[in-house]
Amino acid sequence: MFQRPRGTRDFAPDEMAKRQWALDAMRRVAVSRGFREIQMPIFEDLELFTKKSGPGIVEELYAFKDKGDRDIALRPEMTAQVMRFYVSDMASLPKPIKIFYFGPCFRYENPQSGRFREFFQFGAEIIGSSTPETDAEAVSLASSVIESMGLRNYVIRIGYIGILRGMLRSLKLPEEKISEGMHYLDKNDEARFSSFSKENKLPDDKVQRTKAIRNMRGGVEILDDLEECDAKGYLKEFMGYLSLLGVKDCKLDLGIVRGLDYYTGMVFEIDAPELGAEKQVAGGGSYDLVPLFGGEQVFTTGFAIGFDRILMAREKESQIEVDAGIDAYVVSMSDGSRKKAFEVVSALRKSGLSADFDIMRRSLSKNLKYAASIGARNAVIIGDKELAKGAVTLRDMVSGDQKEISMASIADAISSKKKN
Amino acid sequence: MFQRPRGTRDFAPDEMAKRQWALDAMRRVAVSRGFREIQMPIFEDLELFTKKSGPGIVEELYAFKDKGDRDIALRPEMTAQVMRFYVSDMASLPKPIKIFYFGPCFRYENPQSGRFREFFQFGAEIIGSSTPETDAEAVSLASSVIESMGLRNYVIRIGYIGILRGMLRSLKLPEEKISEGMHYLDKNDEARFSSFSKENKLPDDKVQRTKAIRNMRGGVEILDDLEECDAKGYLKEFMGYLSLLGVKDCKLDLGIVRGLDYYTGMVFEIDAPELGAEKQVAGGGSYDLVPLFGGEQVFTTGFAIGFDRILMAREKESQIEVDAGIDAYVVSMSDGSRKKAFEVVSALRKSGLSADFDIMRRSLSKNLKYAASIGARNAVIIGDKELAKGAVTLRDMVSGDQKEISMASIADAISSKKKN
Repeated sequence: MFQRPRGTRDFAPDEMAKRQWALDAMRRVAVSRGFREIQMPIFEDLELFTKKSGPGIVEELYAFKDKGDRDIALRPEMTAQVMRFYVSDMASLPKPIKIFYFGPCFRYENPQSGRFREFFQFGAEIIGSSTPETDAEAVSLASSVIESMGLRNYVIRIGYIGILRGMLRSLKLPEEKISEGMHYLDKNDEARFSSFSKENKLPDDKVQRTKAIRNMRGGVEILDDLEECDAKGYLKEFMGYLSLLGVKDCKLDLGIVRGLDYYTGMVFEIDAPELGAEKQVAGGGSYDLVPLFGGEQVFTTGFAIGFDRILMAREKESQIEVDAGIDAYVVSMSDGSRKKAFEVVSALRKSGLSADFDIMRRSLSKNLKYAASIGARNAVIIGDKELAKGAVTLRDMVSGDQKEISMASIADAISSKKKN
Repeated sequence: MFQRPRGTRDFAPDEMAKRQWALDAMRRVAVSRGFREIQMPIFEDLELFTKKSGPGIVEELYAFKDKGDRDIALRPEMTAQVMRFYVSDMASLPKPIKIFYFGPCFRYENPQSGRFREFFQFGAEIIGSSTPETDAEAVSLASSVIESMGLRNYVIRIGYIGILRGMLRSLKLPEEKISEGMHYLDKNDEARFSSFSKENKLPDDKVQRTKAIRNMRGGVEILDDLEECDAKGYLKEFMGYLSLLGVKDCKLDLGIVRGLDYYTGMVFEIDAPELGAEKQVAGGGSYDLVPLFGGEQVFTTGFAIGFDRILMAREKESQIEVDAGIDAYVVSMSDGSRKKAFEVVSALRKSGLSADFDIMRRSLSKNLKYAASIGARNAVIIGDKELAKGAVTLRDMVSGDQKEISMASIADAISSKKKN
């Protein structure tokens, strides 16, 4: 027996129906807010990903050579692709460009709960605008997408990358040193940040202040304790807009660093506490990546949502109920009535109902059992006796009630039951 | 500037909207006929594909070693995966199992019109049933899926693999010789079939008859010229069912061979003549593959549709028009009315309308230009003067007509315009 590759999944019909329901909901929300869908290939030149995330990422990638000896990698995320796509084909579109995308991404890591080698991401970007309302619209979309999947218990944490970076910058450190320091802060590596501070002779009060800021968490009121800086006014205005857009469960957390150099201002993370250690389900912020991929500087705010994790969290709260059944299952009771079954099922389908029929020539009892197993709401039974009268038996698969109705009225009878 | 990998595509919003429209239509048709969606991983163990298609396929695959030194390949098609999935997880589901799937597949070949290295397939399978109505239901789905995408000009050609194979078998050839002969017939390689016939001392009249059968094309009446065999009665019954299911543009073509050994009975191909050399847009038939993947024998009928090709053919006939605009674009004319814009856009979205708003603080004229570019059907303009009266200006973006309406009635006004 063949095994599927480790860390990947197959999705059987019941599971897939839930995923498709969730994906439809996400899509509907994004489209209703003026975001438009795009799609990029499953693999790219390896360099696209190392350019964005550094050579270290190769260890985590499905990287290989194609038959033309090119270095290729399955995408570990989609932002680098969006930037490439923007530079080559979208740069001249009217700004702001609001886009979203969904698809599988790949990381070679040890599979465990909430971590797969093939996993699915939803992402969105607003390109070409840098106002607080831009950031608010992005976070609001992330929140609405999660709401659309029915998850109740989640927390949005908002930070601002510029506060700590600005502090290091005010000490006149060179840019690469600032990156190094930010990296330690991102990893919450106190020991190395402490020796970094000593090496670079950072004043003790500033180091202490860095620590204090990283512990600032709460509502907008925590900003009162922050020294005057660009971030302060920006975050106040931004938090106000978030609230006007109806975003709930939103807190400031100035300890969020998101170590990558390309973040510039607001950053955010969303947690689903139910998930324990792997609780982060989304992350993003405003960033500046286009120049890295050969384009002119353009402000961007974006995020990625871990589709699998949100679904896991949602299912921990309550099972997703998707109505995956069909309106009618048609059974013919004899060789003579078989042709009529084809006509009936065709007519039902044509009238917009979902309908299936017996293709295995089984007995009525086996057919009713099968109809129940596929979630048919009605069975239409055609026997020789009924056929002679131009009638069929309509059976309600839930109650078991049966009645004889005329051939011509089947679709109406089933449709009107559906409305009630 | 980074290039996307050769033979792959990015899909910009306009193109993606068409693809999503088509995919939704396909999905709706399949679901309404009792097929349920499944999904499998993007890559598999290489052996899964060589087992089904022979070692020769490696040449056409994106095959590589993962970091655990396993031989992996991006999927070139999805049937082998379905079989693996069936054997491991679906064998105990009530029969018939009606499933469909959609996703990217990969082949390392020279990109040209209608041939991509990353291409998209829709496929379906009916597992566990072997009647003529099973085959009819499968072909009917393929046809409806194509119809749902609005393609008008296509031809379904139906063959039966057993006729020619049965003829070779009646000559008491060993199975591997039969496969060899069928392979030449599939490739339409007259020269090699002729020397094959000589080598194996096939009677001349039989060889001639093989040729004659391969040229039999037309309606059911051509079956009258066929010697009595299982296929004859089967095809007559099957063609009758297809017609009862409303399948049009369907012809017999006994020359269809589909050289792979696993096809057992009915086979079919669908062409879109508009596409010229690459005109085949779908193919399938009844086959027997499960034992190859370690399961018990089970009858299966399935097919794959080339999504990209159908779309190409459809767009050659007439452009796909997708209404991708939004209901309203909200503009505030001053700093004082900005907050109100947030409230209005939130209220519109909550009422189920699609709505966007100015996040770049631009002038009215720039905003109206942008609103037109994103296909907004209405603009809601909030100025200080209107704000004081609790009113807004509603502008019809098509006619340019403007009128002042009360803040409370915006959603109703836009919704009622939508219905008209």
